[in-house]
Amino acid sequence: MRFRLARPGSTGARIYRVSAGEVEERPDELATEEPLEIRLLQEGRRRTVAVTMRTPGSDPELALGFLFAEGVIRRRDEVRRADLSTPNVVEVELADGLPEPELAGLERHFFATSACGVCGKAGLESLELRITEPLPPGAEVSPGVIAGLPERLREAQGLFATTGGLHAAALFDLQGNLLSVREDVGRHNALDKLIGWSLGEGLLPLSAHLVLVSGRSSYEILQKCLVAGVPIVAAVSAPSSLAVELANRFGVTLIGFLRGDRFNIYSGAGRVAGVRTRALLPTL
Amino acid sequence: MRFRLARPGSTGARIYRVSAGEVEERPDELATEEPLEIRLLQEGRRRTVAVTMRTPGSDPELALGFLFAEGVIRRRDEVRRADLSTPNVVEVELADGLPEPELAGLERHFFATSACGVCGKAGLESLELRITEPLPPGAEVSPGVIAGLPERLREAQGLFATTGGLHAAALFDLQGNLLSVREDVGRHNALDKLIGWSLGEGLLPLSAHLVLVSGRSSYEILQKCLVAGVPIVAAVSAPSSLAVELANRFGVTLIGFLRGDRFNIYSGAGRVAGVRTRALLPTL
Repeated sequence: MRFRLARPGSTGARIYRVSAGEVEERPDELATEEPLEIRLLQEGRRRTVAVTMRTPGSDPELALGFLFAEGVIRRRDEVRRADLSTPNVVEVELADGLPEPELAGLERHFFATSACGVCGKAGLESLELRITEPLPPGAEVSPGVIAGLPERLREAQGLFATTGGLHAAALFDLQGNLLSVREDVGRHNALDKLIGWSLGEGLLPLSAHLVLVSGRSSYEILQKCLVAGVPIVAAVSAPSSLAVELANRFGVTLIGFLRGDRFNIYSGAGRVAGVRTRALLPTL
Repeated sequence: MRFRLARPGSTGARIYRVSAGEVEERPDELATEEPLEIRLLQEGRRRTVAVTMRTPGSDPELALGFLFAEGVIRRRDEVRRADLSTPNVVEVELADGLPEPELAGLERHFFATSACGVCGKAGLESLELRITEPLPPGAEVSPGVIAGLPERLREAQGLFATTGGLHAAALFDLQGNLLSVREDVGRHNALDKLIGWSLGEGLLPLSAHLVLVSGRSSYEILQKCLVAGVPIVAAVSAPSSLAVELANRFGVTLIGFLRGDRFNIYSGAGRVAGVRTRALLPTL
């Protein structure tokens, strides 16, 4: 098996393609998966806070987005620098004078794969400690804008078309203009990269924005969007029960099965123009 | 929002379905996502070893499969009992006299989301410490059997069809007979459940078997299959670069993009009947 670096994020390979019994040997592109270590440097002390499997590219943004979602950093000026110190290691240097983050809690969070406690209730309650208020209503989007998002994402997506193996997270404004897109073998990583980019651009909280993720929406996706203040979250596939529960509790508009001109609204229908007035039922 | 328990693994909800601008309120089924705590009881001492978001159902199997993949248990008789002691907590009681598992290492593994080290090389090397030998050649499967797997999985799958939100992992023999299928919001959980079931049935190592996973194959999927001794791993979607690297290094036949009568062989083509003799190149 020969490997060649085709482009960032993909790895060349040779495969056998079998079709109706016929075998053909041919080149192929694989989504690259490698571990990334996230190190925190604070007042001269270095600590590893996480190791995650990810697709190389936008690694400092991935580290910043992860640390933001976990509550370790809250503003851009709390970070002195974030860079790939050696391959597969991002070092994030915090500004002096910040309180030392509770890494025991952080490790526990990551360990739990998605910032949860022992039972769903405990998990939701521990999140509420950081997000005390539901998101304000306010942001509004039209059904036509929502229906057009996947096509805009497809136009912008590079690697997925090549490898078929990457998730994407995309940031739009409420008129449906694509602001940024990030890809990764892990959906949560793609979202961390997107939120890390937003932090660097000074866009947080993302209160007049919409996030689209490929695939499904889970507790973890909602949790990260909530911390970033995203009022409208859309996914190409289904949400989990806990994603819907979290969206309801914190006032997020959650959209799923977004395909063609069809989609489902699982929570917060009040932000979708037309649904608010047309439906006789109160918003979910 | 009203919740009702529709069936194990799914949660009822009411949603708005938007289609070509028309809005309809209707009932829907969501894939249930809740946290599960895995507790180890050994010589009277209880410890939490993992908390993972999962779809309820087959929870003791999930715990056993997870502990097996992590090297904490190796044989069925090392476990005295594994049961849901309270909702969302599985307690696994180990037999007396076993060495105390290195939970620091375990937490580190889980913490890393997929048993990896700091760099890919280190991760692969640490895996080699537990699996010193590549899998033997031996098992053989026909292209026709491979092509028929997704249809057999679809016939057996219940929840996915209902909610569209679940991953599946299925175990087949080399003639393509379906032996077991497990579903979960997390693909790694579905595979843990399947391997935990196999452990309970005394089937490990799965040296004359084939595992099919919905979605993509990653390092984590390959790592779990390798520890269970599975020689042939197939996925409906793409593999990552590290999945292919691991498959090559340890002699696993890795199949991807399994759709209709077409599929790709990324590694170990020697186990697919016909490819071995027809292709002029050495097996990958």
